[in-house]
Amino acid sequence: MATELHAALRAAFSGRLFTEAEEMAPFLTDWRGKWTGTALAVVQPDGPQDAAHVMRWCHERCIPVVPQGGNTGLSGGATPDASGRSVVLSLSRLQSVRSVDLQNNTITVDAGVTLLALQEAAQAQGRMFPLSLAAEGSCTIGGNLASNAGGVQVLRYGNARELCLGLEVVTAEGELWDGLRGLRKDNTGYDLRDLYIGSEGTLGIITGATLKLFPQPRSQVVACVAVPAPAQAVELLTFAQARLGAMLTAFELMSGTSLQLVEKHVPGSRIPFEERSPWYVLMELSGELDDAQATSSMESLLEAAFDQSLITDAALSSSLSQLQALWALRENISEAQGAEGKTIKHDIALPASRIAEFIESTDAAIRAQSSGVRLVVFGHLGDGNLHYNLSPAEGDSPADFLALESAMNRLVHDAVHARGGSISAEHGLGVLRRDESARYKSPVELDLMRRIKSALDPHGLLNPGKLLP
Amino acid sequence: MATELHAALRAAFSGRLFTEAEEMAPFLTDWRGKWTGTALAVVQPDGPQDAAHVMRWCHERCIPVVPQGGNTGLSGGATPDASGRSVVLSLSRLQSVRSVDLQNNTITVDAGVTLLALQEAAQAQGRMFPLSLAAEGSCTIGGNLASNAGGVQVLRYGNARELCLGLEVVTAEGELWDGLRGLRKDNTGYDLRDLYIGSEGTLGIITGATLKLFPQPRSQVVACVAVPAPAQAVELLTFAQARLGAMLTAFELMSGTSLQLVEKHVPGSRIPFEERSPWYVLMELSGELDDAQATSSMESLLEAAFDQSLITDAALSSSLSQLQALWALRENISEAQGAEGKTIKHDIALPASRIAEFIESTDAAIRAQSSGVRLVVFGHLGDGNLHYNLSPAEGDSPADFLALESAMNRLVHDAVHARGGSISAEHGLGVLRRDESARYKSPVELDLMRRIKSALDPHGLLNPGKLLP
Repeated sequence: MATELHAALRAAFSGRLFTEAEEMAPFLTDWRGKWTGTALAVVQPDGPQDAAHVMRWCHERCIPVVPQGGNTGLSGGATPDASGRSVVLSLSRLQSVRSVDLQNNTITVDAGVTLLALQEAAQAQGRMFPLSLAAEGSCTIGGNLASNAGGVQVLRYGNARELCLGLEVVTAEGELWDGLRGLRKDNTGYDLRDLYIGSEGTLGIITGATLKLFPQPRSQVVACVAVPAPAQAVELLTFAQARLGAMLTAFELMSGTSLQLVEKHVPGSRIPFEERSPWYVLMELSGELDDAQATSSMESLLEAAFDQSLITDAALSSSLSQLQALWALRENISEAQGAEGKTIKHDIALPASRIAEFIESTDAAIRAQSSGVRLVVFGHLGDGNLHYNLSPAEGDSPADFLALESAMNRLVHDAVHARGGSISAEHGLGVLRRDESARYKSPVELDLMRRIKSALDPHGLLNPGKLLP
Repeated sequence: MATELHAALRAAFSGRLFTEAEEMAPFLTDWRGKWTGTALAVVQPDGPQDAAHVMRWCHERCIPVVPQGGNTGLSGGATPDASGRSVVLSLSRLQSVRSVDLQNNTITVDAGVTLLALQEAAQAQGRMFPLSLAAEGSCTIGGNLASNAGGVQVLRYGNARELCLGLEVVTAEGELWDGLRGLRKDNTGYDLRDLYIGSEGTLGIITGATLKLFPQPRSQVVACVAVPAPAQAVELLTFAQARLGAMLTAFELMSGTSLQLVEKHVPGSRIPFEERSPWYVLMELSGELDDAQATSSMESLLEAAFDQSLITDAALSSSLSQLQALWALRENISEAQGAEGKTIKHDIALPASRIAEFIESTDAAIRAQSSGVRLVVFGHLGDGNLHYNLSPAEGDSPADFLALESAMNRLVHDAVHARGGSISAEHGLGVLRRDESARYKSPVELDLMRRIKSALDPHGLLNPGKLLP
């Protein structure tokens, strides 16, 4: 039976077909090894039309399809279930940079282009594509759009959603929708683009995208500052935005614990202050000013922040290597926390005005339940997005720590929900947060989402079991 | 029969009910007098829950509902049809500014707040709400969002869509969806917000919104420059964006004909150059720089643009009154064109790279059909959005001119479509461009849109006949 199906599928499209367990294995487990599934086959179509042919073939036979980009997701959104009925559709052979329009500041690419390759293609034309995140060497722009990825430049340039002008999508019936428009304005009907963005492959399969490009910044200056507490960090954010506006391109909060783990585990790392602080902020100013103007703007901001007691110490980058060293402190937190043992992670967003009080009261609630747990809190404060992570007490067993996971998730997410926040700011729901998210959504919203799912995928073939319970 | 219905409707909600022809009249014709309909009743509910009660009442009886904000639309999207079966639901009594969150830079308002009142509420708190357009004194934020309004600050701040973080919406069944989130990041399901934005009341009725606020700009400088042709204007745009980035907050193209009509019809208007030019550009620089820095940045940009022969003359504002006088040239074009007689209007968007060639070839095609027709072309070149308007030859009869309308629409829209453009950049489809738009959409896209309409409004009660044929 499977052999006949495989032969029929083989004839249906141009590209690679994997059916042996060994060949399929890399596509059936997520990169962190948290989820594993099975599949009828893994396919790598040669182009968008071939992806559509695969989908049409599956649609005719009611076979579920799991789209997959770079397989770097954190929520299990690209791993098939255990039924063995699905076809995994990997977009990784869709690798073309289709066109660059310099006057329009747009680039049109296949979904399988990696984020790094996309950044480089922009740079080669004297432009910048600002989306930037840890997995950029492996993740694909199709996956970034399907999960509406965030990262470190969202404060100025927005999430993946804000960077996308047009999409090409394979529908559940295997039709190809050409929505590859390079337009800043288009009010001719429903916003299908934004419906597909962030839908995690449950409404359609993104095969191509037209994206915004930006001028390359003339300068980049980074400051690492010590702040007494999150309340001052939030005040500093408001203060810096009022003075720097769109030139403020990153604003990252890092707890003292986070940076101490970086110093401990990442050779060559050093917090740039004699005195330790309970909290730090990394601020980046970049854009149209020249180096001297940018440095002077940052210096005068820091002086004023000192005068207002918002910051207690500051280190300013005066060379590219210093800038990279400061950024490395922020970027190495996840790795350093991993080196410390098991982790319980949360990817939350809150209104900026609620963050200081959220951290204070949630820290206290967690310590009341488990006094030794270490709070490794950091993230994109400028976007209201925190990675509110926990590490075990020193000497605690991994099993004891992980036994706390669902209680801790509940505690943190209840606190987020009570403050009008989101329990998945940039990682998506996948299977990891699917049920947890549904718990907090109103019946009206869940009903609207289910109606849209049924309308665009009436047989439930697209990435079943993801995003919606 | 109507009397019984009216009594039942009266009992269903708190607010105003109008059933007499005279009371209803202002709601049954659009402000330009292009479309007139009839209605069973006009209601003005007191609050969001009352709007939901009206919708639920109508849903139970299969009575269509036409939502209406400030009734300032240009496409007939808020006027009922001639059946007399509809209830017009005016949101104009939903007038509360519900809350302002200064640290989060957000404001939450009722849908019936006028754009001007919203701008003033932001200003009173030391912030800016950047959406700005001609009808701002009368149009409401609910209508702006339902039609995804654009205006003069889109280049930096985006359309209404980009300024909105959360919505409150009455569904076709009369449920109230509370999506009033003040979050910059939230990846927990389908993007209902962006689906409702721009859907022109055909999927739900917006009753409230949470919107982004921005720091007030420290400075504002405007230059009016003469350019030989649109090609140089587009080159100047790329050049200015590379140098000024997000500080370039407006970039408006104006044909010589447009400004000559302003000089002719608007007392006190003067093109600020001795020599007339075939084309002009108005550029605004605003944001974080102080006045002196902003002026010097603009001056050095203009010098460099002269050196590259992109511009032939330039006038820079050195006072608020000069700035207002330069902006008035742009803002008075519509009025001046109206004073010249009948108008055939187009609201199009193109990739910036196609604009110069589009104007050249479309101008030639129009002149080939009707040599005397005057082209009054102007618009938001920074967004690729042109108001490509026509006025009759001097002395031509209005009837002869308007007889050209459908041929001219076809010619212009075909040329736009062939270049990957949009035939409704910021005014929406309503009834005016509904069929014309469907003509250019692929069957796949129309089918996706119809499925969404059926999913969210299965009985077709929400603003029937608008947006989709």
